Amino acid sequence: MMKKIRLIDTTLRDGMHAVSHQFSTEDVSAVVKALDDAGVDTIEVSHGDGLGGSSFQYGFSKATEEAYLKAAAGAMTNAKLCVLLLPGIGTHKELEMAANAGAKVVRVATHVTEADIGEQHIKIAKSLGMEAIGFLMMSHMVDVDKIVEQAKLFESYGADAVYVTDSAGAMIPTQITERIAAVKKAVSIPVGHHAHDNMGLAIGNSIAAIQAGADIVDGTCRGAGAGAGNAMTEVLVGVLDKMGYATGIDLYKIMDAADDIVMPRLHRPPMITKESLSIGYAGVYGSFLLHALRAADKFNVDARDILIEMGRRKTVGGQEDMIIDVAYELANRK
Amino acid sequence: MMKKIRLIDTTLRDGMHAVSHQFSTEDVSAVVKALDDAGVDTIEVSHGDGLGGSSFQYGFSKATEEAYLKAAAGAMTNAKLCVLLLPGIGTHKELEMAANAGAKVVRVATHVTEADIGEQHIKIAKSLGMEAIGFLMMSHMVDVDKIVEQAKLFESYGADAVYVTDSAGAMIPTQITERIAAVKKAVSIPVGHHAHDNMGLAIGNSIAAIQAGADIVDGTCRGAGAGAGNAMTEVLVGVLDKMGYATGIDLYKIMDAADDIVMPRLHRPPMITKESLSIGYAGVYGSFLLHALRAADKFNVDARDILIEMGRRKTVGGQEDMIIDVAYELANRK
Repeated sequence: MMKKIRLIDTTLRDGMHAVSHQFSTEDVSAVVKALDDAGVDTIEVSHGDGLGGSSFQYGFSKATEEAYLKAAAGAMTNAKLCVLLLPGIGTHKELEMAANAGAKVVRVATHVTEADIGEQHIKIAKSLGMEAIGFLMMSHMVDVDKIVEQAKLFESYGADAVYVTDSAGAMIPTQITERIAAVKKAVSIPVGHHAHDNMGLAIGNSIAAIQAGADIVDGTCRGAGAGAGNAMTEVLVGVLDKMGYATGIDLYKIMDAADDIVMPRLHRPPMITKESLSIGYAGVYGSFLLHALRAADKFNVDARDILIEMGRRKTVGGQEDMIIDVAYELANRK
Repeated sequence: MMKKIRLIDTTLRDGMHAVSHQFSTEDVSAVVKALDDAGVDTIEVSHGDGLGGSSFQYGFSKATEEAYLKAAAGAMTNAKLCVLLLPGIGTHKELEMAANAGAKVVRVATHVTEADIGEQHIKIAKSLGMEAIGFLMMSHMVDVDKIVEQAKLFESYGADAVYVTDSAGAMIPTQITERIAAVKKAVSIPVGHHAHDNMGLAIGNSIAAIQAGADIVDGTCRGAGAGAGNAMTEVLVGVLDKMGYATGIDLYKIMDAADDIVMPRLHRPPMITKESLSIGYAGVYGSFLLHALRAADKFNVDARDILIEMGRRKTVGGQEDMIIDVAYELANRK
């Protein structure tokens, strides 16, 4: 029998980045309806930075999270509604709101070394009757043992699944293979992979993850997402079908959803540019880019040198202030 | 020591498809200059369908092949100028012209079962003092033994290298691995891989090829090329660098060449759409697409069903007339 791969579509969450969080509730309804009709199992709808992300710091959404979720819930017949929550940006209040609005699944996302800050939210989600998934971001930054340790933490909190997330699109297939295989061996819950395309490997890495035992992969229609975008849902469906895996998704319907429903709603198609490639090559947060471009201009250095140095120093989201220091040092070295 | 991977950039040959063969000689000069300056070893310049392709059937080029080649040769200092030749479309006359215009390398491209029609051109190329590379197209259509047999034929004719070419972007990494490994074992000349991105696997497959022993891979700047485009040269350089392979190409310079020199010259960026994905999924020639769309319209069937049926019947370029038969049969089945 063909192994069933669960595909979580995050066009309406990670894809929010591609439209600066400006999908309307009508957009959400239309996209959810098309995905649900194509047979997508789980559909994620949230601000790009998760529940509570709509803010001056992360960019305001066009509608309230509650309006988005109600629009989504009202448009689906079979799919499960999913939300993303980064502890600190989102709180238990947003999680309760989401559950009341119809969300059945939450992904609790933490930096790959900080699963412990997700414990409370996993437990709240379970008490609300939701499926709770641990989501380890920037997992290229640590070695395999560390990822295994953090995945086991999520399992110990009661998570129903755990993800190895390549937030910066920084890994090559062999790195995915060893990480997924090690986590799969260490936990007894399903294991997922979330890929970005900064180095053109979103599909290649997703396949490597599945071949290494992953049970869940993420995609977005037309690859809409942060940076160079995500693995394309419609391509994953076609490739997995060719490889003999079942997704439960109709290939023609998901192609039509991507090209006819999602694509016209994107400001611009996601592409690999020198900027997004540099993010993947350097292995840093996408949000560093604008800061690096400004600092490069001010100190007359190459923004790519700044990003690569930030990657070498293993900086993480929140350390944007170091970009100025790095630019200053690079300028002095010249 | 790091293994050196030879990267052949075919922006000005496969990428010609992305601009309907309308690059000007000035475009060719500018792109060659940027590629040469970045350290690209071999630069292919020809009509998208190879020497002699400029015609009513394949589309007319903006300039003559000779003008393109002279512009290219005049703009390079270190790189080798390469041309593509499909026996039948191009003849010994075009090959002699190309050699006189400065071409040092020719890729003789045949269907994966027809290396024998390339024998004469490999030998002519050698007598002209050129490097001659055999290029086995649509290599997803046959099993590994057949590819090995055909690769050995090219080697026996005196070819300096041989390619496993995934013309339709139809293969997954494991298929590439077994094909490249088998050919590598069977011949003593270098082995290359040419990927297309119809299923989002151009980079993933190129990496798989290299890990299986390939010595040469192809790329185009910004992925400009037929169908969903090719492996992106600048991404290959970044990924191979991260993996510890040497390409001799400067990453920043090739990124700049792609984004600042090539991208502004493309009519539209190459993308994976339902059409190009269907080509890869079905494993058929890209040129079938327009015929299939017309037949679908006439017989009120889905063009994708036609393409998939054409793939099942293992049709090859030149069998476009079967598309009407297939459409008629599909309409009658309804």
